[in-house]
Amino acid sequence: MENAMLPFPAREQVPTLVANAIKPIQKEEKQMEKSPLEISEPQMIKPTISEFSGVDTDAHLENVIASFLGTINHRRYRFLGYPTNQDFNYEALVQLLRFFLNNLGDPFIGSSFSLNSHPFELCVLDWFAKLWEIEKNEYWGYVTNGGTEGNFHGILIGRELLPDGILYTSRGSHYSVLKAARLFRINCVVVGTLISGEIDYNELKASILENKDKPAIINLNLGTLTKGGIDDVDLVLQILEECGFGEDRFYIHCDAALFGLMLPFLNGAPKITFKKPIGSVTVSGHKFLGCPIPCSIIITRLKYIDLLSKEVEYISSRDITISGSRGGHASIFLWYALNKKGFNGLQKEVEECNNKAIYLHNCLRGQGIGSMLNNFSNTVVFERPLDDAFSHKWSLSNEGNLSHVIVMQHVSVKMLDSFVSEFAKNRSIWYKDNSSKKPPCICEEIGAKNCACLIHKKLISF
Amino acid sequence: MENAMLPFPAREQVPTLVANAIKPIQKEEKQMEKSPLEISEPQMIKPTISEFSGVDTDAHLENVIASFLGTINHRRYRFLGYPTNQDFNYEALVQLLRFFLNNLGDPFIGSSFSLNSHPFELCVLDWFAKLWEIEKNEYWGYVTNGGTEGNFHGILIGRELLPDGILYTSRGSHYSVLKAARLFRINCVVVGTLISGEIDYNELKASILENKDKPAIINLNLGTLTKGGIDDVDLVLQILEECGFGEDRFYIHCDAALFGLMLPFLNGAPKITFKKPIGSVTVSGHKFLGCPIPCSIIITRLKYIDLLSKEVEYISSRDITISGSRGGHASIFLWYALNKKGFNGLQKEVEECNNKAIYLHNCLRGQGIGSMLNNFSNTVVFERPLDDAFSHKWSLSNEGNLSHVIVMQHVSVKMLDSFVSEFAKNRSIWYKDNSSKKPPCICEEIGAKNCACLIHKKLISF
Repeated sequence: MENAMLPFPAREQVPTLVANAIKPIQKEEKQMEKSPLEISEPQMIKPTISEFSGVDTDAHLENVIASFLGTINHRRYRFLGYPTNQDFNYEALVQLLRFFLNNLGDPFIGSSFSLNSHPFELCVLDWFAKLWEIEKNEYWGYVTNGGTEGNFHGILIGRELLPDGILYTSRGSHYSVLKAARLFRINCVVVGTLISGEIDYNELKASILENKDKPAIINLNLGTLTKGGIDDVDLVLQILEECGFGEDRFYIHCDAALFGLMLPFLNGAPKITFKKPIGSVTVSGHKFLGCPIPCSIIITRLKYIDLLSKEVEYISSRDITISGSRGGHASIFLWYALNKKGFNGLQKEVEECNNKAIYLHNCLRGQGIGSMLNNFSNTVVFERPLDDAFSHKWSLSNEGNLSHVIVMQHVSVKMLDSFVSEFAKNRSIWYKDNSSKKPPCICEEIGAKNCACLIHKKLISF
Repeated sequence: MENAMLPFPAREQVPTLVANAIKPIQKEEKQMEKSPLEISEPQMIKPTISEFSGVDTDAHLENVIASFLGTINHRRYRFLGYPTNQDFNYEALVQLLRFFLNNLGDPFIGSSFSLNSHPFELCVLDWFAKLWEIEKNEYWGYVTNGGTEGNFHGILIGRELLPDGILYTSRGSHYSVLKAARLFRINCVVVGTLISGEIDYNELKASILENKDKPAIINLNLGTLTKGGIDDVDLVLQILEECGFGEDRFYIHCDAALFGLMLPFLNGAPKITFKKPIGSVTVSGHKFLGCPIPCSIIITRLKYIDLLSKEVEYISSRDITISGSRGGHASIFLWYALNKKGFNGLQKEVEECNNKAIYLHNCLRGQGIGSMLNNFSNTVVFERPLDDAFSHKWSLSNEGNLSHVIVMQHVSVKMLDSFVSEFAKNRSIWYKDNSSKKPPCICEEIGAKNCACLIHKKLISF
């Protein structure tokens, strides 16, 4: 119990529980002597459903689960491309799995669904409101069923406040932002990005001026998924002022899915604060904090909520959330993790991730592989590996010519070493001297000084 | 392990695990000698979050969790008003809580997020496709983050296929249907209901004829949340034909949140089948089947999906779901429960629930309390209790003059007996002879023959 939040048991070893789980598979056991990074992915038993349950049901289920645990544990040791912390332990909460908990409706009002965890949810919301500097009696929020719902809710408040508003967002935005525009029938202008991944401020200004007769709903990324670029809130506010937009003619939603819990713990980093005239901020629970099920926290200003609210008697609560039924476990997981880590633990984790990101950045460049790393970011950007099988093995999520590693808590130095050495080795085969293939030039995406194509390679400095 | 899916350990006793959990609270232990239905709700420790974690963190967390378990276990014994099965056991899957599993994107295509449970999801989808009679190569679907998302997705497909369509739905619909109309900016016509809760077919026909120039997106309830009324799909199809609507001018979404997994196991019940020209069906995973976290299954026709689809490179998958990131645990829970129960187990549970609903219906009438129970339904409808504290104690969800009990697997005969006797006892106090208060007349809502107001009471037959 007291070790529960320590790093996932000996990261380079297979956790005992999982190791036990995969015992039935004889072949795997022998491989366990090797480092988890050396063994090949175990074959997974395909799950099926029999029409009728019978005497062999339990044994079948047990085998399938054990096999699946072996597979995902294997993959976790190579899981580099996504911003989800895979290093947590909520076993102390296992008994809660006996209940379907539903926080439906407005957490501040409660509902007649008595199997809820609203007290935990409120506690978590208060914590984030304080973190992002908004008074307890001035904010409203809830814990959603996922990251997309956080963005949906923020953008929807914008639309309800400014029904004919145009949504501005950068090309570097999470796909849920464009999805919101489509689903909610909002006109949307996609603005280009700077090399850092930040929104192109000049283009944003030009677009706003072009549509000066319409209010502006602006999604800002703190920071972007692909590059960890952090849109400058102050600069955007200045642009709005220069364009003649008063506070009644714009709404700013901040998508802080990953960094919402990182920036507040980094000295000198841009502040996420409601002291500026922003409308809403969202952060995912399953990203930096770590949670087995998807969830996000959305915080907005209480004064906006009446415009969205509508009495729905059935649940004895205001129907102001998107999901209606919302899982109650997520709030308890979040409450638990925030308590276990504390400010000190969170700060330590943020620093460790960012330091390992710097380490990876340097290792890649040391191997002659161009790489970019923004300030305050744990997202290391580099050229897309030529071979998709390699990307697949390391769970890289590629976009165009780019790939990235997002250094989360479960990513160890040993994993990074193994990744870099395999990447460099493969790369020397993909692009060997007599090959017609050359490393892609990505100077437009990450800047000439970071690019390692044949033309720009000489510019890389260490 | 082999008892895992048996009824929640001795329903009238406190489960051992939970009993252990509440050991720290001395007072409660003495009360345990009484039946759980007799004791009063334990005081819950208010959760807090300390800024800094320290030596006393673990003890605090342990106490709060134990206290919370005591509270929700207490409430579970009085949990009558909502259609969520609270009788399940997924402890065999506890090790999966070590991972954040994400089934993002299209389950049929997969994604580069390698920590997913897509194989389980596909298995569950195939099972429901077969249940609702659509060929494997003709359907598409996914497991959502909640019930609302199932309705949202079905209605959205309708909107994408028929962009200027009008949404028709009855007053008895789940609030998520009206919410979809508002969020997705769809014009909506709310049609009245019959006493059974079914849509008023004459009014529907008149409304469709009034808007003959616009295509029809129709939400049908199989059945309604409040009354368990089942809209007649065949009759609605006939109306559409009579109004001159060909299959290219209507889209029918079926909200089968609870009954989607019940009707197929009841002899003589209306069939849910894609052999009829319906567009989509959704069922909740946390309702009849039982699941600790909210989820639903949506099944639709594959041919429709291209119209909604859009390539999103980041996740190497089609961006065709609403949520994007979708929890992977739900699919494994569903797969597990379907295997454990089998057709035989499901059928037995459906019959037991419906028989207990008949039992409750008769008990209420036996006490002179008017009550309505539709065919094939486990939802017993009756007058709203005068005292909200009584409703609160039994987690009743009231609407206007009506209340209901939805008899799920965790609802025992002993619970029902206790409920009815307390209701009758309280009622005799609320409406005693010299009181100015009289039982409400609800003949308009449940029919004269079911009403127990002073005027209609004599009509009740047993």
